[in-house]
Amino acid sequence: MKTLILLLTLIAGPLSAQPSDSLRIRSIYDEALARGQAYEWLRYLSKQIGPRLSGSAGAQKAVDWTKQLMEQQGFDRVFLQEVMVPHWVRGAKEEAYFRIGKQKTAVPIAALGGSVATAPKGVEAPVVEVKTFQELRELGAEKVKGKIVFFNRPMDPTRLNTFEAYGGAVEQRANGATEAARLGAVGAIVRSMTTAQDDNPHTGAMRYGTGVPLIPTAAISTNGADLLSKSLKENPNLTFFFRQDCESLPDARSYNVVGEIRGSEKPEEIIVVGGHLDSWDLGEGAHDDGAGCMQAVEVLRIMKTLGIRPKRTIRAVMFMNEENGLRGGIGYADYARKNNEKHLAAVESDNGGFTPRGFGIVGTPEQRAKAMRWKELLAPYGLHDIGPGGGGADIGPLAQSGTVLFGFKPDSQRYFDYHHTGIDRFEAVNPRELALGAASMAALVYLIDTYGL
Amino acid sequence: MKTLILLLTLIAGPLSAQPSDSLRIRSIYDEALARGQAYEWLRYLSKQIGPRLSGSAGAQKAVDWTKQLMEQQGFDRVFLQEVMVPHWVRGAKEEAYFRIGKQKTAVPIAALGGSVATAPKGVEAPVVEVKTFQELRELGAEKVKGKIVFFNRPMDPTRLNTFEAYGGAVEQRANGATEAARLGAVGAIVRSMTTAQDDNPHTGAMRYGTGVPLIPTAAISTNGADLLSKSLKENPNLTFFFRQDCESLPDARSYNVVGEIRGSEKPEEIIVVGGHLDSWDLGEGAHDDGAGCMQAVEVLRIMKTLGIRPKRTIRAVMFMNEENGLRGGIGYADYARKNNEKHLAAVESDNGGFTPRGFGIVGTPEQRAKAMRWKELLAPYGLHDIGPGGGGADIGPLAQSGTVLFGFKPDSQRYFDYHHTGIDRFEAVNPRELALGAASMAALVYLIDTYGL
Repeated sequence: MKTLILLLTLIAGPLSAQPSDSLRIRSIYDEALARGQAYEWLRYLSKQIGPRLSGSAGAQKAVDWTKQLMEQQGFDRVFLQEVMVPHWVRGAKEEAYFRIGKQKTAVPIAALGGSVATAPKGVEAPVVEVKTFQELRELGAEKVKGKIVFFNRPMDPTRLNTFEAYGGAVEQRANGATEAARLGAVGAIVRSMTTAQDDNPHTGAMRYGTGVPLIPTAAISTNGADLLSKSLKENPNLTFFFRQDCESLPDARSYNVVGEIRGSEKPEEIIVVGGHLDSWDLGEGAHDDGAGCMQAVEVLRIMKTLGIRPKRTIRAVMFMNEENGLRGGIGYADYARKNNEKHLAAVESDNGGFTPRGFGIVGTPEQRAKAMRWKELLAPYGLHDIGPGGGGADIGPLAQSGTVLFGFKPDSQRYFDYHHTGIDRFEAVNPRELALGAASMAALVYLIDTYGL
Repeated sequence: MKTLILLLTLIAGPLSAQPSDSLRIRSIYDEALARGQAYEWLRYLSKQIGPRLSGSAGAQKAVDWTKQLMEQQGFDRVFLQEVMVPHWVRGAKEEAYFRIGKQKTAVPIAALGGSVATAPKGVEAPVVEVKTFQELRELGAEKVKGKIVFFNRPMDPTRLNTFEAYGGAVEQRANGATEAARLGAVGAIVRSMTTAQDDNPHTGAMRYGTGVPLIPTAAISTNGADLLSKSLKENPNLTFFFRQDCESLPDARSYNVVGEIRGSEKPEEIIVVGGHLDSWDLGEGAHDDGAGCMQAVEVLRIMKTLGIRPKRTIRAVMFMNEENGLRGGIGYADYARKNNEKHLAAVESDNGGFTPRGFGIVGTPEQRAKAMRWKELLAPYGLHDIGPGGGGADIGPLAQSGTVLFGFKPDSQRYFDYHHTGIDRFEAVNPRELALGAASMAALVYLIDTYGL
């Protein structure tokens, strides 16, 4: 048996895990669970800074504070990287109701990011409800013109991974207004992207197609959507009213915040670990994505605290503007290209601060296979789901240069309860789940640094 | 390749999973996720009935309601099974503070289940803080007599599985008062069994050893414990005061509630799926263990709804009195023995309504190996942790008769945030996580019924 193990070790070569790796990884988890800092940092970011939509004062405070935080950690270099970002503001709180005869029934809505305002007095019109763009097109301009289109296709609750359910529904939010405007609609209302049944509207980015009128669009809570749908069946002629005064201002100056520990052997090879610093304006952006940012800083802190001197340069990047422009992610990749930086790998946490389940990998089959050899070391920590998958929006632009991308995959069941709402608050984050995520990312970064890809 | 698969199928024989099993399991999850009932049932049990400590009016209401619920589901047989249970009552809300000079600092406590009251005016005494029973014994009677012993060993936060951390600390709660009384202490205060840092005291069962004075004992919140510990370092002579008027009344009549679907081929072989219906008195017993009870009923509902006619008899059992006596579990096993019932397997859910991770199995190596062949069918649903492990307190007594036990293992990170506190409420349960647990249990029961053990 010993001979066999020796033989396998020789065959596997330097890429295979060494016995000491399991001890090292254990020490990473111990540090995160017993003395982790990410949770208290997230408390500050959520409670003292709060919402930080691109271009807002909150976003600027978050830039200043995370730079200071990383400097206090004694990282080898901390710097800002300028990007120009869209600057959309919600304005006054939205108002919405549907009217049957003289009776008005209020429903909770939130303007979608990027939407135009309604007229100051609001817009009121009859409603056509559809589940798909196909259904809308079949109705045709005759039945849509002058109306408000109500997109009401729910996320599929039977998908185990809620991100797949989101992927199957989110086109309504992103492109619904454009599809409706093509047929002469005067507004678009979209069922919130969540499997939860409640009164929280979920905002999020939308974009207007070219050559169509810019009509106002908002998300309605799932309870509101169900009530509207039921009422429409009973009263097809009801009218829907909404008012919002959101606005797109000129692009604003902002920053990615970068901190690094310089590599001892191959400092020119960079491993990025990051999240996005901007958030929607309704809550505190605790899960989306304060969690990922604080976990990224925690990865570097853990390495420093445990005396792990990486061979390669490890960089924590707080990307700006993932939510409504991705300027930070694009700008970072541009910066890397211009400076001839070699990015070996990038790890992003942007799926919430929940219990870790694995990592999705974007890379060549050989690179994926190398990373999947680490499964055995990571499975004891509940990381079973390691294989091909999405990386992350912010790190996506690095793929063009051959960087291997890793998307952190926490348990997805609760994420869309909070996503883009007023309840994405610090209280929704569990300290152990957050810490386990940071430890999982640190363990992966340690393995990438030690064995390459 | 086809030949190889055929060969493997022949070797594996009838125990191996058939292709249709994966479709059947998929339909179980679809039903639970899209049309699951467990969450709304749990809402009723938590909000309309609430706490249901053995012997209380709430426990009786829960017995009546779950019987009615199972009858409404049209199960083949629903019946009550009488057991006599301990009847402990908390009485008036406890009061506690520590005193330094004239300054009193209030701290949150909760009497431990089974504890005696203090004198009506309370008890006040100097404090000795210890981490272990060994440490206490080394102090000896001289330093302990007349004092209140403060057991302050935290649950180990570095254990990935919080139940292991609990196992390493809970002797303080169960036996602390006895150990303290042996050395002449007048009271015992125990750090709450949780890794959370907050103001919620966690109650739970304790027992008095024979031949020692019955001294009052209570749990103190973790924030309270840290404050007391810190204050003791600065003021070793501070005194601690607490008052509680809890009481053990004569045993009360209660019931296990049992519902079954009769097997079509081997009705005499029984598969139990269950949870415990009693709860502590402070919260709503939502995770502990309303979740497990409603999941068990949901397993039978799903089978009925999908037209799965089991070969064996499937029984949902709501056990009474897991928290402070286990009379229901013991009584059920007695009943089975007296009636010569053959229990093939028993599945218990008593670790909260969180995202499923696996099952712990108690059985012979051969039985475990059979069950572990189903891993491949269950892994797509996140059930990776299937192997030797604990079954469950209520089903434990069945093991003597050779029943194979399965303990449902959901993710454990949040369980001890709520366990035995006032915040174990319906709001702490996520509907998807609860539904996934019910589906996982139903899938396991389906496989046991189809292939035996």
